[in-house]
Amino acid sequence: MAGLLKNAYPWIKLPLIVSAPMLNAATPALAASVSQARGIGFLAGGTKPAELDDLLARTTALFDSASPLRRGPNDTLPFGVGFQNWGCKLDAMIPMFRKHRVAAIWLFAPKHLSDFASWAREIRAVSDGYTQVWIQVGTVMEALEVMRLARPDVLVVQGTDAGGHGLRQSASIISLLPETKDALEAIGFHNVPVLAAGGIVEARGVAAALSLGADGVVMGTRFLAAEEAGIAKGWQNEIIRVGDGGATTKRSTLCDRLKETVGWPEHYDGRAVTNKGHLDEEGGLSDAENVRMYKEELKQGDEAWGDHGRMVTYAGTGVGLIKQRRPAADIVEETSTGALNILQRYARMANSKL
Amino acid sequence: MAGLLKNAYPWIKLPLIVSAPMLNAATPALAASVSQARGIGFLAGGTKPAELDDLLARTTALFDSASPLRRGPNDTLPFGVGFQNWGCKLDAMIPMFRKHRVAAIWLFAPKHLSDFASWAREIRAVSDGYTQVWIQVGTVMEALEVMRLARPDVLVVQGTDAGGHGLRQSASIISLLPETKDALEAIGFHNVPVLAAGGIVEARGVAAALSLGADGVVMGTRFLAAEEAGIAKGWQNEIIRVGDGGATTKRSTLCDRLKETVGWPEHYDGRAVTNKGHLDEEGGLSDAENVRMYKEELKQGDEAWGDHGRMVTYAGTGVGLIKQRRPAADIVEETSTGALNILQRYARMANSKL
Repeated sequence: MAGLLKNAYPWIKLPLIVSAPMLNAATPALAASVSQARGIGFLAGGTKPAELDDLLARTTALFDSASPLRRGPNDTLPFGVGFQNWGCKLDAMIPMFRKHRVAAIWLFAPKHLSDFASWAREIRAVSDGYTQVWIQVGTVMEALEVMRLARPDVLVVQGTDAGGHGLRQSASIISLLPETKDALEAIGFHNVPVLAAGGIVEARGVAAALSLGADGVVMGTRFLAAEEAGIAKGWQNEIIRVGDGGATTKRSTLCDRLKETVGWPEHYDGRAVTNKGHLDEEGGLSDAENVRMYKEELKQGDEAWGDHGRMVTYAGTGVGLIKQRRPAADIVEETSTGALNILQRYARMANSKL
Repeated sequence: MAGLLKNAYPWIKLPLIVSAPMLNAATPALAASVSQARGIGFLAGGTKPAELDDLLARTTALFDSASPLRRGPNDTLPFGVGFQNWGCKLDAMIPMFRKHRVAAIWLFAPKHLSDFASWAREIRAVSDGYTQVWIQVGTVMEALEVMRLARPDVLVVQGTDAGGHGLRQSASIISLLPETKDALEAIGFHNVPVLAAGGIVEARGVAAALSLGADGVVMGTRFLAAEEAGIAKGWQNEIIRVGDGGATTKRSTLCDRLKETVGWPEHYDGRAVTNKGHLDEEGGLSDAENVRMYKEELKQGDEAWGDHGRMVTYAGTGVGLIKQRRPAADIVEETSTGALNILQRYARMANSKL
């Protein structure tokens, strides 16, 4: 399976580290740095083709100026683009897929799982099959249904520890990943690479994901603390400050309501650091009043982040393991190599009966 | 750390597999089988000293008849007892701790964390220090506080994937375990063995837990499918039938309300397979009516289990990985040896650059 990944993305180093397509946060600099460090960097496609056109052009320029030779098969661009499908029109995006032949397009959160079928078909058609289709799922049922409908080249399995949007109800990868792998194999899909996402922020999590059967990992929250991340300083400071991620983050739809984002299918919510907005909601505050206070605090800029405030700090449960801002390339190197070191150390202990 | 465990529990095989102290489900036969298979089996202490006296005597007899020589240091009994502290009186239990010197007593869910201090002190006093104190936590904060208050000999870190009771809000072990380890080390507790619990049901989960830094694992749900488990046939059938554990189980206090269990501190709930009782509650059914229908169905026995019914099926998210009923000894052997095989295989792949 690792071999399949290496064929499709010849520049990568194993175990594969991927940066998630986080809206706005996944800048051209972040995506390019991750791919240059031999991971796979993703942009977030958004909903506007002209904006995506610009993002893709800037990322390509950044990548080529640093390492012009390291491309995918048939000169595909060595990074990917991810979409939140429910808010996105396929027809509008097709010209972008044709113009910028990226290595992978990552699909997530459609109105109906069956929407993946047409996206996968069109992506393959306009890229002559060179752009691979990645699909993100959060349950075993979704994984099986998505394989049947769209035969993704890579499956991203997201556990409930993940920051930002995901399924309201799900398991962590500790059980979700192996159960999904077994279910895929039981229906004959032995050969689809499976990447683990959710709660992985450093080498131990990567090693654990590999032990569970993952062929690589996706990290979101960890890359929010990359120097290249396109997020407010206040948000990034919170990622570094907050500890005890299971106690200090929770899944909720409040952040969508505060930002007045409408349209997420109802079985999704998002994990964020809890703050005054969440507390006030529990205390019975109306959405209208919560939104009003949120907007008021927005004007304060970076100072408004923190548990005293109301700003949206999407983060996974691994947030407590993130202690400093780092260049994205260092994060890729440290987590990939670190995971191998851990597995080798344990195997040595195993050989000596621990 | 593995060495510390081996000194305290000389009969164990590494990596250590522990069966959780599940009320009623953890029978003398289950505890004895797990310890005979070189894990550590736990009984559930309950609240009545006379019942515990009987359980301990039966477990000792079972163990001694099978392997009279394999005991702990100073002839401690090679198994443990666990308590849900909120419902349990220390004074009443002390005579049992004196009479049956078990290898370990496991404490969990006190009214106040500070209650652990007197329990730990008394257990050590009446056992001349030979009975080790295990404490279960679910956040980093709890781990640090518990170390300060009671200096447990072993810390059990339970993630949110666990079946049955645990913290309402927590992370899975994917991030909770490494963050807890780091936090303990940061305040000088390098030497407390940490066991991972929650979502681990087979070898891949054990290997993942070790990769995350655990010194061993605890499994509950998996041992519900052991031949020796003391649960209704209907419940056990459900454990084997149910798949997609993240989608089909959830955390709730409904099961306590159905069983009219009163007194759990409010930050605890329990993970169980969702069924008609949960659906009706979402639909607005009153507790009184839900309890009435639950009691009515109880009379049907094993037939009442299933998603068509209302019986309580505590289970972790790993439930979908459990496919058959097995002797407890086979479960211990398969998960412990299987985890080592996985780590060795990955290390070989790492050596050949995957």
